[in-house]
Amino acid sequence: MQVVITGGAGFLGRRLVTRLLEGETLIGPSGAMTPIDTLVVFDASLPAPPLSSDSRLKVVTGDITDRNALAQAIDAQTTSVFHFAAVVSAAAEADFDLGMRVNLFGTLAVLDACRQLPQAPRVVFTSSIATFGGELPEVVDDTIPQAPQSSYGAHKAIGELLVNDYTRKGFIDGRAIRLPTIVVRPGTPNRAASTFASSIIREPLQHLDTVCPVSPATRLAILSPRKALDAFVLAHNLSAEAWGSMRSLIVPGLSITVDDMVKALRRVAGEKPLQHLRWEPNADIQRIISSWPGAFTSARAQRLGFQADASMDDIIRAFIEDDL
Amino acid sequence: MQVVITGGAGFLGRRLVTRLLEGETLIGPSGAMTPIDTLVVFDASLPAPPLSSDSRLKVVTGDITDRNALAQAIDAQTTSVFHFAAVVSAAAEADFDLGMRVNLFGTLAVLDACRQLPQAPRVVFTSSIATFGGELPEVVDDTIPQAPQSSYGAHKAIGELLVNDYTRKGFIDGRAIRLPTIVVRPGTPNRAASTFASSIIREPLQHLDTVCPVSPATRLAILSPRKALDAFVLAHNLSAEAWGSMRSLIVPGLSITVDDMVKALRRVAGEKPLQHLRWEPNADIQRIISSWPGAFTSARAQRLGFQADASMDDIIRAFIEDDL
Repeated sequence: MQVVITGGAGFLGRRLVTRLLEGETLIGPSGAMTPIDTLVVFDASLPAPPLSSDSRLKVVTGDITDRNALAQAIDAQTTSVFHFAAVVSAAAEADFDLGMRVNLFGTLAVLDACRQLPQAPRVVFTSSIATFGGELPEVVDDTIPQAPQSSYGAHKAIGELLVNDYTRKGFIDGRAIRLPTIVVRPGTPNRAASTFASSIIREPLQHLDTVCPVSPATRLAILSPRKALDAFVLAHNLSAEAWGSMRSLIVPGLSITVDDMVKALRRVAGEKPLQHLRWEPNADIQRIISSWPGAFTSARAQRLGFQADASMDDIIRAFIEDDL
Repeated sequence: MQVVITGGAGFLGRRLVTRLLEGETLIGPSGAMTPIDTLVVFDASLPAPPLSSDSRLKVVTGDITDRNALAQAIDAQTTSVFHFAAVVSAAAEADFDLGMRVNLFGTLAVLDACRQLPQAPRVVFTSSIATFGGELPEVVDDTIPQAPQSSYGAHKAIGELLVNDYTRKGFIDGRAIRLPTIVVRPGTPNRAASTFASSIIREPLQHLDTVCPVSPATRLAILSPRKALDAFVLAHNLSAEAWGSMRSLIVPGLSITVDDMVKALRRVAGEKPLQHLRWEPNADIQRIISSWPGAFTSARAQRLGFQADASMDDIIRAFIEDDL
């Protein structure tokens, strides 16, 4: 079985690579758990630091809209694709054309590459809660229409429509999951509007100064990297029947205010890290973040086995364990 | 003021051309009703029969995805665009690539041409109730998520997301209206799955045989050409403030069963035309039509002044008056 991860050199891509090479099994075309023969990482540039030296791993670099480059990754042997490659929210807002190119035309290129395959592959597409916006109830569920208030959110909503239509046509066996904000991301801040949600935990724990651009009362729905990985694998392994005709799903997150995130940091790591946190409101970031739902639920996701984190304290402890 | 109609050689485009040349006024860039200096029809081929010989009319032919051809129609003088060009439902279902090309890439080409203009033009985009599908309540309203069950519906939902995002970015002043099935269309059947809804009235009235491919109990939401034209003009003329940040809207239609449509035909035209109607179930057509809501309402559309037809009898009488 050959698995392709686009954006595989990114943070979540790398974790999935590790998890799959270390023995996590996926359902193969036969419908049974199947060992991975080849794991292909497709990304814009070579992963740095390098990924595993496992002989099953193959790295292909190229532009996600370059159909020839993509054909080097998604080929006749491909049975599963995790499509993670994307330009994140603040970056897509700052550079409209870049966002359209990667998020819309890149997704189309991936879907069309999958469509060429002899057997429709399972395709896991990472959508986002940024697809929701406008007037929203306090808790958003599966019955609420998507009305994105950012280009990134629009691209992800369009991606879901394409994944659903390509699936209906039998070109792919698609599964789109709407992820909450991932916290705590390791490394350095990225260009997502929500990047602060990781920074305010990650930097203080490493005695580094950081800025929180939103108010303490701002409510976020968050998901740990561990639970995100669980969601990718589950989204992939669920049968087509379990998914049914609706191939989009909200992954439940932990609903929490920024203030309560900081309190959890204090509980887990004491007073000292908090000296590194400064509050500096940014209206643009606040606008984007406030347009996303701060709490949501999905009876369907729960029924299918998707799980939120139990507490912020657990999320912080897992970050210390996995990344520090 | 320069107005462009893509797909302007089509049935609704032609009607709008007539209406605008005969004196219907539109709000111009100044915010006041403004006479039309130039009316540009863009279509794949020359209108047949030819359109008006009015000197304000200019016809440009070309492929909707050909950005150079489109630039001949949407130029620096353009203040308003009605984007009607589309591959209809059954045709997009039969030829996936053609549907994607015209409905997705064509819409992108139109939006990008508008984005180049010195001032963001008003853009009226015709979406459809085909953007709804899946498990639906009996009456669909503005609170129901779109889940299209056809490629055409997916393309229209994607178009709405693009119109909303291009508007939010200030590239256009967009207005997307979700139209019910237009009944009675003049002429001959087209490749929309819903074409029968016109044929079962139009053909019998002209002593021509026709086939109804869905069951009598099938419920449709329909809108007359007259009301559709009213909706185009209203959607255009409403202020940006009246539209607000949500640039998509359900246009209310008349909810009626096929059986009641036929009964209205009998009331208006007597028993004789009904001899030309044969019932011949087609599972594909029934599946697409049954996936669309048969009744919907929009408090917002009503507040803004969009109106459904009062009765099927009126719709049939208007068709006889306008087209026979």
